[in-house]
Amino acid sequence: MMTTKQKKQVKAGAKKSDGVVKVALLGFGTVGSSVAKVLAGSKFPGIALTHVYNRDVARKRDSAAAKFVPSTAKWTENIDDVLKSDVDVVIELMGGLTPAEGWLRKALSAGKHVVTANKQLIAYRGTSLQRLAAKHGVQLVYGAAVAGGVPVIPGILQGLGGDRVTRLSGIVNGTCNYILSRMETGAEYATVLQDAQQLGYAEANPSADVDGFDARAKLCILSRIALHAELNPDEVATQTISTVEAIDFVYAKELSCTIRQVSRAQVDGTRVHARVAPMLIPLSSPMAWSHGTQNMVVTSGNYGGDVVFSGHGAGGEPTAVAVVSDLLAVSQGAKAVELPVRKRQVTGEFLAPHYLRFVVDDKPGIVSSIAGALAKVGANIDSLLQRPGYPKHRLPFVVTTEPCLTGVIEKAIHSIAKLDCMLERPLTLQVLVPEDKPE
Amino acid sequence: MMTTKQKKQVKAGAKKSDGVVKVALLGFGTVGSSVAKVLAGSKFPGIALTHVYNRDVARKRDSAAAKFVPSTAKWTENIDDVLKSDVDVVIELMGGLTPAEGWLRKALSAGKHVVTANKQLIAYRGTSLQRLAAKHGVQLVYGAAVAGGVPVIPGILQGLGGDRVTRLSGIVNGTCNYILSRMETGAEYATVLQDAQQLGYAEANPSADVDGFDARAKLCILSRIALHAELNPDEVATQTISTVEAIDFVYAKELSCTIRQVSRAQVDGTRVHARVAPMLIPLSSPMAWSHGTQNMVVTSGNYGGDVVFSGHGAGGEPTAVAVVSDLLAVSQGAKAVELPVRKRQVTGEFLAPHYLRFVVDDKPGIVSSIAGALAKVGANIDSLLQRPGYPKHRLPFVVTTEPCLTGVIEKAIHSIAKLDCMLERPLTLQVLVPEDKPE
Repeated sequence: MMTTKQKKQVKAGAKKSDGVVKVALLGFGTVGSSVAKVLAGSKFPGIALTHVYNRDVARKRDSAAAKFVPSTAKWTENIDDVLKSDVDVVIELMGGLTPAEGWLRKALSAGKHVVTANKQLIAYRGTSLQRLAAKHGVQLVYGAAVAGGVPVIPGILQGLGGDRVTRLSGIVNGTCNYILSRMETGAEYATVLQDAQQLGYAEANPSADVDGFDARAKLCILSRIALHAELNPDEVATQTISTVEAIDFVYAKELSCTIRQVSRAQVDGTRVHARVAPMLIPLSSPMAWSHGTQNMVVTSGNYGGDVVFSGHGAGGEPTAVAVVSDLLAVSQGAKAVELPVRKRQVTGEFLAPHYLRFVVDDKPGIVSSIAGALAKVGANIDSLLQRPGYPKHRLPFVVTTEPCLTGVIEKAIHSIAKLDCMLERPLTLQVLVPEDKPE
Repeated sequence: MMTTKQKKQVKAGAKKSDGVVKVALLGFGTVGSSVAKVLAGSKFPGIALTHVYNRDVARKRDSAAAKFVPSTAKWTENIDDVLKSDVDVVIELMGGLTPAEGWLRKALSAGKHVVTANKQLIAYRGTSLQRLAAKHGVQLVYGAAVAGGVPVIPGILQGLGGDRVTRLSGIVNGTCNYILSRMETGAEYATVLQDAQQLGYAEANPSADVDGFDARAKLCILSRIALHAELNPDEVATQTISTVEAIDFVYAKELSCTIRQVSRAQVDGTRVHARVAPMLIPLSSPMAWSHGTQNMVVTSGNYGGDVVFSGHGAGGEPTAVAVVSDLLAVSQGAKAVELPVRKRQVTGEFLAPHYLRFVVDDKPGIVSSIAGALAKVGANIDSLLQRPGYPKHRLPFVVTTEPCLTGVIEKAIHSIAKLDCMLERPLTLQVLVPEDKPE
């Protein structure tokens, strides 16, 4: 909770004596122009877009989206035009730590409220920025930083504060979900990635999405607000989806599962288990229903059980909904609930069944070697799947294990990978267990 | 938006100079005792349960749940002990309009914040109570009034204010959902209702649940906050689930559907289409995934598209999560976003495909008579289903129509019902169309 002193410092609202909340937009890309469009379309009384900051203003001001910006607004390439102005709320949509962090610190220190969609900034610097905002009696809100148009952040902050949430899992990267749900229908990774890039869902360098760094930042934000656990994003284990192949969806289906990039965190005493990785998900789990760029977050509370939020997590307009909703809240003086947060140690270990896919140059004794290596670490085999129709010299097959720790499996894989017959590094995926399914 | 005057009147928070928010509980039943349990378990700093009002205090104070109430709290059967005390927040969990409304008016007028789970009160008197709260600079919050532990109300208020939500549909009555999802597996209505009554899911007189009045109140609350449309609950059409039979699930399945009680509302200019009724739902729709007492609400916005909220909508502890979350918000001075609401006319008409189930004493010419009556009103038949194995003298069969207005269908049914061979009044259900499915 805020101290009484902090509380006194919080302004009742951003509205000034002239009855108008002045708003500056930092960044006029997809989301920024959508924010201008939503504001122009809904004409919320008492809110005025007065400044737009972007590089290359000449080009932006000529873009089709610029028609949504009031003619009275000032376009500028100089951030000081915003920071030294009388704007009440700064909306930051540039992304990244630099220069956003410095600029927002200046804005907060100058008594301006900040609305941001910047997940990396909030994941790495959220607590410190929140402290700065409190010190200056202004608000820092970031509902758009996770799951775009799905009100997961306000829902958790305002609606689950009374529960003790101990676990959460989510599909929070639309790019990965688009790729994996397309692969579910038989397409290969490389083809789908290319399509995603052409559609604008994936960057030219897709690493932030496919390697899990984008989702990791979101997971850290969710852990902070739902589990009240502060994690260092760099300490959260990630696993790329780029090693998942079409064949894995075939085997997953035999196991009544599909594959999704899952970000999950679970409180365990003073530690938090957290990981972003492609996982096998039972087809009966709500997570499996999430297709295309849809996002989904499931929280599990001691008192309220499982709560599911889902919808469009990405795209200009859904994200603009979150930004404008935050802007309305700030402009009305609606303040988010705050509960104390603690720094927590992170481990990527989960006790889970595992899916292991091998590609081998087939010869007698392979299964025995693999089984031996698994037995040595104490991992029990649950099933062995080998579909017909693949060449013996490049044979993919799958072993699933009973629940065991990922670290234990990795030890076995380390020795299995050294077998002569192994043509690729084996793929290891955790399997989401049915307890994660809301009944 | 609030006026500047109103805003000034809103207290920064409920916390008093001694740093403790004093809380009174009106009603110590299932939810009330769960609220005490959650408060005792989580020990939120600065919140103290100081009063418990209930009839028959002697019995309540001896109940097992009473151990969660601090020994310092005052138990009373006299409401004035609460209203004339120095409590800061009154939590009302009694339900019904009388005496709750009068007491809460007194509490608000005395400068006490109110947290309530009372859906009927908020549906019928919410706007007027909200006005009274604003006048006295206190808050009236009711996150527990819809969907218990699922943060639909805070999610919409804080997270979707920036969108223009034009449509919503929900499964908001756990009792009906329990009954219908059990019937999906072959059970008859009467049997399942009896089970529900024994499990405490349904009242001895189940009318409020099965006839749709409970869901109707919740639909009106959701319409107010999401569609900004004030509806008169008495004007919203309801249809009972008690005429749905096991055979309807058999035919629904042939149509790749199931049946659920759906509450839905849709903006259409200055009117709102609103209805609570059992409906055919495609198995591919998220609504069909909702089993047991689970609740689910889907909102559709112009900018953000479809957003799904789901989880445990009923039960003591999930509802207590919503109540305690609201209490935390109020005690921290976290205020909900308010947008202007307009009174709207209601119609129960929807343009939808319809499912018509007849039970007849079979003789030649029946189908021709039905087809004739439908043709006369301009309704096109889409399919005709008749499963084998039923006796000719009591034959159930089904006709589905292409999309048309419910009023049109009812006109045809009115004349069809008069046919000699009709053994029961035909059952008419709207079919949820695929546009309601978030992709």
